[in-house]
This record gives sequence, C-alpha cells and structure tokens, in this order.
Amino acid sequence: MDERLERYAELVVGLGANVQPGQEVFILPNIAHKDLARALVRASYNAGASYVHVLYNDAHIRKAMIELGPDAALTYAPDFLKTFFESMTGNAMIATTGDPEPDLLGDLDGERVGRAIPIEIIQIRMRQVSENTVAWCGVGAPTEAWAKQVFGEPDVERLWEKVAFCMRLDEPDPVAAWREHLARLRERGAALDALKPDAIRYRGPGTDLTVGLLPNARWMSGSSTTTNGIEYVANMPTEEIFTSPDSRRADGTIRASMPLVLAGQIVRGLELTFEGGRIVNVEAESGADLLRSQFASIENADRLGELALVTGDSRVGQSETLFYDTLFDENATCHIAYGFGFPFVFDGEPDEGLNVANMHVDFMVGGPELEVDAILADGTAVPVIRNEEWQIA
Amino acid sequence: MDERLERYAELVVGLGANVQPGQEVFILPNIAHKDLARALVRASYNAGASYVHVLYNDAHIRKAMIELGPDAALTYAPDFLKTFFESMTGNAMIATTGDPEPDLLGDLDGERVGRAIPIEIIQIRMRQVSENTVAWCGVGAPTEAWAKQVFGEPDVERLWEKVAFCMRLDEPDPVAAWREHLARLRERGAALDALKPDAIRYRGPGTDLTVGLLPNARWMSGSSTTTNGIEYVANMPTEEIFTSPDSRRADGTIRASMPLVLAGQIVRGLELTFEGGRIVNVEAESGADLLRSQFASIENADRLGELALVTGDSRVGQSETLFYDTLFDENATCHIAYGFGFPFVFDGEPDEGLNVANMHVDFMVGGPELEVDAILADGTAVPVIRNEEWQIA
Repeated sequence: MDERLERYAELVVGLGANVQPGQEVFILPNIAHKDLARALVRASYNAGASYVHVLYNDAHIRKAMIELGPDAALTYAPDFLKTFFESMTGNAMIATTGDPEPDLLGDLDGERVGRAIPIEIIQIRMRQVSENTVAWCGVGAPTEAWAKQVFGEPDVERLWEKVAFCMRLDEPDPVAAWREHLARLRERGAALDALKPDAIRYRGPGTDLTVGLLPNARWMSGSSTTTNGIEYVANMPTEEIFTSPDSRRADGTIRASMPLVLAGQIVRGLELTFEGGRIVNVEAESGADLLRSQFASIENADRLGELALVTGDSRVGQSETLFYDTLFDENATCHIAYGFGFPFVFDGEPDEGLNVANMHVDFMVGGPELEVDAILADGTAVPVIRNEEWQIA
Repeated sequence: MDERLERYAELVVGLGANVQPGQEVFILPNIAHKDLARALVRASYNAGASYVHVLYNDAHIRKAMIELGPDAALTYAPDFLKTFFESMTGNAMIATTGDPEPDLLGDLDGERVGRAIPIEIIQIRMRQVSENTVAWCGVGAPTEAWAKQVFGEPDVERLWEKVAFCMRLDEPDPVAAWREHLARLRERGAALDALKPDAIRYRGPGTDLTVGLLPNARWMSGSSTTTNGIEYVANMPTEEIFTSPDSRRADGTIRASMPLVLAGQIVRGLELTFEGGRIVNVEAESGADLLRSQFASIENADRLGELALVTGDSRVGQSETLFYDTLFDENATCHIAYGFGFPFVFDGEPDEGLNVANMHVDFMVGGPELEVDAILADGTAVPVIRNEEWQIA
C-alpha cells in the first residue's frame, strides 16, 4: 500500500504537475486525504521543491459558514487566501479530489449554496488558467467514504484498484504509457481541427443540441505547457479532447447521462435547454434549484465554456465504475461545461465568442446512444463518435 | 459526546477567546482535531462571527520539510501565512493542542529541528501578544493518539473526563466557576506584588536558582484584556500567576520536574545552569541537542522570559495526570520559560531587563519538594510556596 501510494505520488509530481527543482509546490487536499497529501509532499521535495505548502480543506467548515454565517460570508475571499493562490503563479499546484461526503450540503438551502463562491479567488485561478502560469494537476485520493459512495461498502482496496487502473499504474512504466496515451489524444484533436467544423451536434435520448464552434479555437488534449515552458497534465486521469465553443450559438436540449456532484449536492436527471447560446430552462430530479441559483446570480454561468469528447477506450469508461467524482466521471464519456471557457485553446487572441464567467461546471452527456457529428461550413454532417467509437482518422 | 463537545466549544468561544459579533475568528487545529475544530466553528458563528478561518496543521508536512527540504526552507515564512497571522489583529484566535504524535520528529537531526522556526511568523505573533491586539485561547483536543500517550492505551473517553475536569465542565455553570477561579488567581498576584520582591528563589532536589525581578513588572493571572477592551483567557486550563523576570539576573541550577515535549521531541531529565541571566550549561537524558541548537542559533533564547507559580489546588495537578502537553502540564505545577518575556506585564513601558527573543518555551520545575521564596530588597526570604501550598495572604 505504501509503495503504491509512493508510485502514485511520484507519477503525479513527476508527470502531472511536473515539479521542477527550486519551485514551490501548493497542495490542496481534503483532511481525509492526508496519506496522499503527505506522500505528495515527500515526492515534491524529492523532485527538488524549494518549499511545499499544504492547505487542507474540510467541507464541514464550509457547511457551517453557509448554514450559520452572515450573508457577506458567502462570497468573502480572505486576503491570506488570495495571497496563497497568487503565490502559485510560476509554481506548481496539486489538488486532490474524491469527496468523502459528496452530499454533505444536501440539506442546506440550495440558493445559499449556489451563491457561496469566493469570486475573487476564482478570478485569480481563472487568470492563471487562461494565462497558463501554473503547472497544476488534480488527482483522486481513495478513501473509505469515497469507496462507500461508489460501491455501497467502504472497500477502499477495490477503489484503489480502479483508480490505479485509470492512472495506468498497472503499466511497467506508467510515465511512458501516459506519454503514448497523451500523444494519441493530441492526434485526435489534430484530425478534428483539420475538418474545420463550424459546429458540433449531439443527438441521443432526450438530446438534440447544436453548439457553434469558433474558427481559431483548437481541440486540445489534457497535456499543456506553461508560459515558462513546463509541460503538465492538469487532470489525471484524462481521456478527453476538448475545446471552448462559441458561447453565442447553442440551440436545443441536452440531457446529462450521469449524476453530477456539485457544491455538496447531487444533481440527478439534469436536462438543459438552450436558445441563442443561453440556458433558458433547467430540469432535474434533484438539485435543479442549485443550478438555477447559479444561473441567476453569476453572469454568463448560463452559457457554455467547454465541449469535450471521450470514447469507449477510455480507461475510466472501461473501469465500468460511476465514481461520483467529476474528475473521473467526466473522463468516462463525453461531457460539456457551462461557465467560463479557456483562452488558451485559441491560436492567437481569444475570439469574442469565448465565454467569460466566474465558474465552470462539467457534466456528463455521453453514452452508447449519443451520436456526435461535426457540422461543416457547408452543412455537411461528419460522424465523429458512434457507439462510443472515434470515427475520423 | 456531541453535547459535551458543544459545551466545550461554547466555553472556549464565549469565555476563552470571547468572540464578539462581527469579528473574524482564526482557528488553528491539527487535522486530528477536526471534531473540535468543527464545533468551534459552529460556536463562533453562533456567537456572531463574521467569518471563521480554519488553518489545519499536520506535523508530517513539517517533518518532510525538515527531513527532505533545502536549508532555506527551515526558516521560510510564506507570504500567505504572514497575511493570515497579521489578519488576526483586532480579531479572535483559537489554537488546539494535544499533539497526536508528540515524538514524531524524534528521529530527525536535532540541530535542523531546532533551526526550523519561521521567524517572521513568530515575530508577528510576538508583536500581537506584546501589544495585546488579539483575543486568543489555546485549548486541548482529546484524541485516541493523545490518550495512548497519556495512559498507554487509546482510552479517549478517560482523557475526555480528565480534560473536562481541568476545564471545569463538571460545574453546573462552567463560565461562573471560571470567573471565580480567575478572581482568586488575580488576588494571589496582587498579594505577591504587594511584597515588592527583588527576586524569586527556587530550592529543591538538584535545584537552587535565584532569578531577579523587575520593579514595574506585575504578577498576572490567565485573564487579559485586549487593547480594544475584550477580556479573554489565553490558556484554558490556566492555574498560574506569572511574570517576566529580569533576564540579566539568574544564577544557579534548576532541574525540570516533568518531561517536556518540544518541536516533536521529548526532552527528559532537563537541567539548566545559569550565570548572570544566561544559560551556560544544558544537561538532559534526551533532547539536549535540540535545546543547545536553539540556544546557539536564536538570540536570547538562553535567557528567561517567564516565571509562573502554580499550587497543589490546581485542577490539572489534582487530575494526577501527566498529559505530555505543555498547555496542561505547565498548569499542574510551577514552571519557568526561556525565550521572550511579556511586555504586557509591565506598569508603563517595559523595563530593559525584559528578554526579547524569537521563541518562548515553558518547562515544569514544581513538585512537593520545591520551595519558592520571595527575596525582598533587604534580603529577607518570604516563603511563597511550601509543599505545593500558597503561603501569603
């Protein structure tokens, strides 16, 4: 177990955040993830980090704030936290996921939960992401609570096996396996770019949505390079190619194909309807109020920021596991995100169709019945995904 | 259990840090203390806090830094942490103690452990303490690991009973019991001040030490008032009266009567010899290197900053428990501290005999055989403590 944790931490520090000698490393774990946090700290120092900061989070603290704090607390961004996030620029960051209590906030007022966002912190992170100044990586941290959520019993060893499979730790040389995998995703992005599609159309049960694309936006893979030349993998696992669409052009309805864990609530049966790029109707079996609150209170949260394509050869998909965790579940299948788009997907300056907002939320839409087409400028529909298989060379 | 935790948190928030409506509260718990941390957060919001910050600490992170980090990391004070501590000014702070792994750093190089102090952070805290701008409170957080250290078995319920007794939670009105107790300690301080002693002399097995006092330094109790008028109790439990001595006048030898947990090591059998106020010799069965490193590397660490008198009616003493935790153990019996003294004990400006240093470490010297005398200006010795009983009206 300790050796697996060590291999895992080394992969994340070495390939994911790609920590360089002399860099400071910022680690953001849940208190339930202390074993992985400690392993990441040791791996970071072993990679030559000058200092490793660990800022533990605990959702119960946030819950008490939303439940008992004054209104002004909901969006308060403490100075020290702004300094913490600003200090990441030019350095490396690792965040752990695998929420030990995904529905902890389920009994709170959805409207307050939706408003509880420290906007100024999000803005700092958005700037870092768009300027690409931080080599960062989000990774899963198996816990008993997470295993219970996934399997109905706290079988953390079984969860570790699933996570290790998704992370290619079963390969003799995980780093080499990851480099090969990332190269294949880059090729897919290039093939789709070569078609110069004007839009993407999704069709399936309850779904018929067409989203416009921007001419100078590229389809990217999960590997990026910071402005100071450090290649990193922002999400591990990653199985997607993605772009940011034209936020002014989305029409139709799309149905989420998996539950979405959002701000401590579980959103089930989500169905969003778009007109002229904007979400005009939200339906869900649970959690709809939370989304409506976000769309009502946060400018441009109701426009799309990301389209991502994932196929059936995804290791996450192959694991046949619903992880109840976006980092994993979004890599099982196609997903889209409302909220901000990514300036770094553009050749040159971002197009004005790029969405600007203070949040970004991914939700899953893929599945065996989802058909994805690239719509060319002349109206031709080119099949991109059928039966979860990639269709273009 | 939950109700006791809630009563405990209310006492600490209400009387200890005395949180006021509209204040921000800064909570500094170990990750093992999450239950208490969460209860303190809720109690703080219930008391009207505008925001509650929780900065969890984890000694394993510090251990990795000392073991694997570069030399510069040892004293590094991150900007965000400086901002965090500076933000406490005018607000309230609560720190939890009860180190779950008191000897975690025992196998590290004592010299590096001794140097590993973020000086700039300590300076911020020292300024806040000396200017009395933060209403703060340190309290114990029972854990299985702490119970194991104390009893040899993880009997956390037994530890809770001891802690609850020391905290007067067995009283029908704990706050009223605390106010009465604090008034009695204040009377003791006034009686000792009235003697206008020139020095304190300690005699006992292995001990004969005389420490000079400063004419305008008062004997204080554990209750203080911030510059903006908030009365708080910095340590709970507190059973002492204390002052800061003349750091230029200490001669003789004093033997610690209990082990001292310091920077992740356990110092046993400590014996310090003073000449002209300065520590000139350190002996110990274990941990002597750590103290020698501190005295060699930190200016004026080798001079005294505090004398504290505790008698046998102390609830901590009566609990007949060695807690392996300074917050508790220093309140079982008389103790002294090397390192910085307290500017707030003076009537008017602090005397130049007050010690200024970047650290402050308490160690226990009391016990049934310790005789404490007040030495008056004419050389008369007035008994202050005999057989752990207070001798002056």
